[in-house]
Amino acid sequence: MTFIETLHNAWSTRNSLLCVGLDPDPAKFPAHLRGRDDAIFEFCAAIADATADLVCCFKPQIAYFAARRAEEQLEALIAHIHEKHPGVPVILDAKRGDIGSTAEQYAVEAFERFRADAITVNPYMGRDSVEPYLAYPDKGVILLCRTSNPGGSDLQFLDVGGEKLYERVARLVARDWNTTGQCALVVGATFPAEIARVREITGDLPLLVPGIGAQGGDIEATVRAGRTAAGTGLMINSSRAILYAGKGEDYADAARQAALATRDAINRYR
Amino acid sequence: MTFIETLHNAWSTRNSLLCVGLDPDPAKFPAHLRGRDDAIFEFCAAIADATADLVCCFKPQIAYFAARRAEEQLEALIAHIHEKHPGVPVILDAKRGDIGSTAEQYAVEAFERFRADAITVNPYMGRDSVEPYLAYPDKGVILLCRTSNPGGSDLQFLDVGGEKLYERVARLVARDWNTTGQCALVVGATFPAEIARVREITGDLPLLVPGIGAQGGDIEATVRAGRTAAGTGLMINSSRAILYAGKGEDYADAARQAALATRDAINRYR
Repeated sequence: MTFIETLHNAWSTRNSLLCVGLDPDPAKFPAHLRGRDDAIFEFCAAIADATADLVCCFKPQIAYFAARRAEEQLEALIAHIHEKHPGVPVILDAKRGDIGSTAEQYAVEAFERFRADAITVNPYMGRDSVEPYLAYPDKGVILLCRTSNPGGSDLQFLDVGGEKLYERVARLVARDWNTTGQCALVVGATFPAEIARVREITGDLPLLVPGIGAQGGDIEATVRAGRTAAGTGLMINSSRAILYAGKGEDYADAARQAALATRDAINRYR
Repeated sequence: MTFIETLHNAWSTRNSLLCVGLDPDPAKFPAHLRGRDDAIFEFCAAIADATADLVCCFKPQIAYFAARRAEEQLEALIAHIHEKHPGVPVILDAKRGDIGSTAEQYAVEAFERFRADAITVNPYMGRDSVEPYLAYPDKGVILLCRTSNPGGSDLQFLDVGGEKLYERVARLVARDWNTTGQCALVVGATFPAEIARVREITGDLPLLVPGIGAQGGDIEATVRAGRTAAGTGLMINSSRAILYAGKGEDYADAARQAALATRDAINRYR
């Protein structure tokens, strides 16, 4: 089954549009995990186990692992999710972007080494920088479109002949690059009007939406702007607000409660 | 000494604008290295030792290491270059780009874990996605501007109010983002007229120029378009044409000959 098919299945069978972002920062871990060699794996696997029935996907952010020489723990984490929670796709948030021969190497990293089901990719280098990922027909490729940070406007909001650059990216991906049906887009929750615009441009293309929770995006506005006619189409990511909901040994329970509340808040507006 | 100062020193003391790109592909290694656990380190370190007096910098491409679980060999390689060839800066070609809190993690990866002197960064997410790298005052940040691949034109060549997007990026970086003097730009050798345009916009900003050699860029046109009044300002990268100049046990000697010829070809037009 492809990433997109698995995602559609997860939306319907799990009744959730929630993506839990796995951005492990050991400085924020509960005291009993600190100093353990496998703390990053243990922390993330416990969060995954406590929330898997509440989510449509998981999204580990590779920078948090790479900064701490924890690639092996990332491999183990994704393998753990595949084994324990089949049907929940894993997006490697890596925002890669390079010429074709190098992109082939990044595709090996994401899909063969880490066994992710999808990867986030930066569109700045154009279509041929995306094709090596599309050569894996079961995998998903999620292109940055409108990002949730303030500086996102520096380039993405430039006018390119009557539309904004992020609108052009949405149009290019939906109409030209997505010939194989493997693509999705990243659109930040901090800009609901722009989520609506991207939804208008792209039809039912899946949208990964970071920025609720710690970054301040509004759930109601996000869902109303981005849902498809079927009431799906969104992977709404929350990372810090779920991972660090609790500070003690019961952090996984606290994460589950936070995930449950977020899933239900999302479902209220579908 | 900062990256930019080290680079200026290397240009003058080594009389070279050549950057050797370290993109190790084990399938192309000489037979005697294949199957060795440290083949990637050995191959790259031998190339570095054979060419260090001919270059102004080295540029390992992290994807080639990450695809093969060879991060430790990349750490060892950069440590080797620092120890054996002081004064030759190392650029980690990673093309990272993410929101501030994640960019902080990528900066730790590049500058603390791998001890690179500079990193390549994608500008699509805007200024705040670049600032965490600039928080390391000795390090360099090299922003993608005009890339050497065919698809580079898909976004970079869009008209944004009377200029192309890559020109806007050049202007933003040179005039707004580079307040600390740590920035440089990537401009592909496959587009000499655009190197000239970026040089015109950015004054003496250092330009990293991939695309000669295997990608077909012309050395004379590149140097004439991109040199500063001082006859420097360029890091002209060659990877495959140098790394794989020889196929036998004398591959490092062959690489040296190729690097020497390329350096001299560049110097002919400075």
